[in-house]
Amino acid sequence: MSTQTKTQAWQARFDSLRSNKLFETLVISIIVVSALMIGVKTYPLAPLATQVIVVLDWAITFFFLTEISVRFLGESDKKRFFHSGWNVFDTLIVVVSLIPIEDSELALIGRLVRIFRVLRMVSIIPELRTLLNSLLAAMPQLAYVMLMMFIIFYIYAAVGSTFFASINPDLWGDIAISMLTLFRVMTFEDWTDVMYETMTIYPLSWAFYLSFIFLSAFAFLNMIIGIVVNVLEEEHQRQAKEEARAAGEPTLTELRDEIRGLKVLLESRRH
Amino acid sequence: MSTQTKTQAWQARFDSLRSNKLFETLVISIIVVSALMIGVKTYPLAPLATQVIVVLDWAITFFFLTEISVRFLGESDKKRFFHSGWNVFDTLIVVVSLIPIEDSELALIGRLVRIFRVLRMVSIIPELRTLLNSLLAAMPQLAYVMLMMFIIFYIYAAVGSTFFASINPDLWGDIAISMLTLFRVMTFEDWTDVMYETMTIYPLSWAFYLSFIFLSAFAFLNMIIGIVVNVLEEEHQRQAKEEARAAGEPTLTELRDEIRGLKVLLESRRH
Amino acid sequence: MSTQTKTQAWQARFDSLRSNKLFETLVISIIVVSALMIGVKTYPLAPLATQVIVVLDWAITFFFLTEISVRFLGESDKKRFFHSGWNVFDTLIVVVSLIPIEDSELALIGRLVRIFRVLRMVSIIPELRTLLNSLLAAMPQLAYVMLMMFIIFYIYAAVGSTFFASINPDLWGDIAISMLTLFRVMTFEDWTDVMYETMTIYPLSWAFYLSFIFLSAFAFLNMIIGIVVNVLEEEHQRQAKEEARAAGEPTLTELRDEIRGLKVLLESRRH
Amino acid sequence: MSTQTKTQAWQARFDSLRSNKLFETLVISIIVVSALMIGVKTYPLAPLATQVIVVLDWAITFFFLTEISVRFLGESDKKRFFHSGWNVFDTLIVVVSLIPIEDSELALIGRLVRIFRVLRMVSIIPELRTLLNSLLAAMPQLAYVMLMMFIIFYIYAAVGSTFFASINPDLWGDIAISMLTLFRVMTFEDWTDVMYETMTIYPLSWAFYLSFIFLSAFAFLNMIIGIVVNVLEEEHQRQAKEEARAAGEPTLTELRDEIRGLKVLLESRRH
Repeated sequence: MSTQTKTQAWQARFDSLRSNKLFETLVISIIVVSALMIGVKTYPLAPLATQVIVVLDWAITFFFLTEISVRFLGESDKKRFFHSGWNVFDTLIVVVSLIPIEDSELALIGRLVRIFRVLRMVSIIPELRTLLNSLLAAMPQLAYVMLMMFIIFYIYAAVGSTFFASINPDLWGDIAISMLTLFRVMTFEDWTDVMYETMTIYPLSWAFYLSFIFLSAFAFLNMIIGIVVNVLEEEHQRQAKEEARAAGEPTLTELRDEIRGLKVLLESRRH
Repeated sequence: MSTQTKTQAWQARFDSLRSNKLFETLVISIIVVSALMIGVKTYPLAPLATQVIVVLDWAITFFFLTEISVRFLGESDKKRFFHSGWNVFDTLIVVVSLIPIEDSELALIGRLVRIFRVLRMVSIIPELRTLLNSLLAAMPQLAYVMLMMFIIFYIYAAVGSTFFASINPDLWGDIAISMLTLFRVMTFEDWTDVMYETMTIYPLSWAFYLSFIFLSAFAFLNMIIGIVVNVLEEEHQRQAKEEARAAGEPTLTELRDEIRGLKVLLESRRH
Repeated sequence: MSTQTKTQAWQARFDSLRSNKLFETLVISIIVVSALMIGVKTYPLAPLATQVIVVLDWAITFFFLTEISVRFLGESDKKRFFHSGWNVFDTLIVVVSLIPIEDSELALIGRLVRIFRVLRMVSIIPELRTLLNSLLAAMPQLAYVMLMMFIIFYIYAAVGSTFFASINPDLWGDIAISMLTLFRVMTFEDWTDVMYETMTIYPLSWAFYLSFIFLSAFAFLNMIIGIVVNVLEEEHQRQAKEEARAAGEPTLTELRDEIRGLKVLLESRRH
Repeated sequence: MSTQTKTQAWQARFDSLRSNKLFETLVISIIVVSALMIGVKTYPLAPLATQVIVVLDWAITFFFLTEISVRFLGESDKKRFFHSGWNVFDTLIVVVSLIPIEDSELALIGRLVRIFRVLRMVSIIPELRTLLNSLLAAMPQLAYVMLMMFIIFYIYAAVGSTFFASINPDLWGDIAISMLTLFRVMTFEDWTDVMYETMTIYPLSWAFYLSFIFLSAFAFLNMIIGIVVNVLEEEHQRQAKEEARAAGEPTLTELRDEIRGLKVLLESRRH
């Protein structure tokens, strides 16, 4: 048996393993356990429990390392493996988890990486992956609405920090803080406190807030409608295709051709 | 007259009673009275009124017992009676109301059961039952969106309790409290107070809140669109069916067959 | 000239007056003036201005009396006049304005009636009347969703006042106050303050609030979808009718009949 | 070479310049730089930085002056240039920026004009211009809903300032302040504080707030539905047109005419 055939045999074995239903369930369970551990760590723990968690953490890291290796070795085209963003994400999570970190600054990053492991749930369950993809697919269409909204925010923030900075520097000190304050106004969170404060100096500043609320609400509405119309359109096209495929009904053009065929038949008999 | 025929005669009588319009109106009235009594009990009452209520309460319980018996005896297939979730619910409410409870702990359960009697309104009015069923029917489709949302909450809660637990343990102490705090942020309820507090230590923590608000709003929007599209689709299918049934219009396929029939006729005459 | 013909002549004259474009504009202007006066009266006024307003007020009342008389006399069928809800409303507003009131209690009613005169704007502008009618038309369909919502509110209010009345009687004292508090929770208005207070005694009471928010949001969503579907359906039907009327296209059934006619023609020639 | 031909040659040169892709990118970059400068100016700056900004500001003003001149000279019909609202806006912004202002009152206007330069982004990017136009196009349809809403606000504000002015003049002092307070109630911003205050004097005033919330929410919903239906309808018409154009399918009328042609053919042969 040559080396190549040997490799192929192994690859096939890994490939069958990774598409194994039982193996998949095991991976999901380990991710759930890893998620629970993250939750448990936020509670005060007995020293023993902490030790158990450290051991479990390493066990999970090594299981994930094994799993990603199985998936990598099971892939026939090694290059294509890293073309999938999810594979890159999974590998990164595992690799960073493997780095032993003592420094308290880096330890935080280690904890964060362990938290992001929960996202592997999205990468492993196809339905969630589809959901995320459809969310991302809606993004580019919204790009211009978002740019418009940013321009609205920017202009109002510039006006706000020009006039109100001296009234309350915590809310209107510079353009960045002003934009945060405007986001707060947009969510209606204690926006009247912000308004009443500036109205003591500029009694007409209510017009600033009301016009901003109307403009941002309107732009936001536009965004929602954009998404809804888009979703309905896709749905519509999907349905139309399905109906056309399912029914096998003749088109009006086909009907006309049948009738014209008749005419030719009749006329040919005339002579 | 045999025992069986006698039973059948009784059953028919009960069956006609329970579908009696007047009997139904009586049941609804009693439920309304029972609901009003629950409301009245939350006000301070004179001793006499309390006694009247106790008597009325027992009267209602016994009326409900009678009513459920009538419905049970009127059912020809006794087994099928408990296949309906509503029948099980109604029976449970009546049975628990019958248990005489003195213990103050159990007395609370007794009061709760009496409150849940109001839900019998839903079980008795068909339109409300349909409404509830349509709400429940929409649930499974939303399962994955809800799972996605839970993952988003879980990750942000884990990050939040990792970084902010020392700042305000009441809001970020453990992962459960953090999730409640995030729900509060999602409803925009004093969310800036939560944010400003953590921004004193981590000035960039606004990114945590803003990204969470965007993600959860986006997922929520997706959920709503999911329901709307679903509802519209069902509506569309219902309409299409209705139209097809009502009109009795021939399909394009039938038209083509008619034309082909003509062709055959013409060609057969040729020879 | 007989009395009857005289009456008819007068009636025709009144009828032409009330459908006069200029007269209509005058009525709208007077309503706007009357609305402005209501606004002006909320500011502190000089004694002279107050006197001017009193005079103007009587002038407006008599103008409205004249206008309603013109409309009444212009109506050929006197009985039908009061079949329109708007006519009854207009007449009531005028009649109550005519009663001279000195008593301070009744004076308030007088002021209220003058405010409700602004509603005459709705009765006089056809587009606003259409808008209001379409709002009212949507109501009955929502009746069951509203009943469902009321039941949800009632049950939660009963549970709330059973458990939390001793914690904060101002919020949960009786079932009416509890329903108001729940409405506040539904609008997310400082709902966490309400929740944190009860969580000090019942740590699990967050489940009460969260389940209520989900249920009411869901029912509310259902209501909106109900209206949207309804509006779209009407729109759809209107469009379908318009298309059918405009196009004058033959139906598929007519086409089939044409083809069958051909067949009969062919077959008749056979013999 | 005559003067006229010379002018035309120059005009063609300017016209080619303004539609040059590179020139357009340069204009957008300058607008972005001008927007960044506005942001930077809200932070405390070193004297040198302030001087740099003043110089940059003049450079940008002169660049904009050059750009608008190029566009004006590149236009063959000089009169039509000012028919476009965007051109008028751009010219105004440049002209006002050119006025040297020392007075502190006017200096503010100078700063505002520099902020509004950011809006030139909308005038230069076609997608944003389309977006804004579609927003403006939706406005007139909403005019009547807005009038209805204004009437609701006006009546409630009049009632509110009649009854509650003595309770809290800051919120209900006159009709203008009352309308602002009602807008606050509509956004659910601490609306219970407003309500609890008036309920101490008028215990039934909750009905005032609840009815207002329902009415305004309902009118608002109506507005949203209005926009959505409108957008969907336009979408629908666009699709229908596209399909019709793309498919080239015969209509049912054309089909009928074909069949009738057959009939004529058959009948003509009869004789």
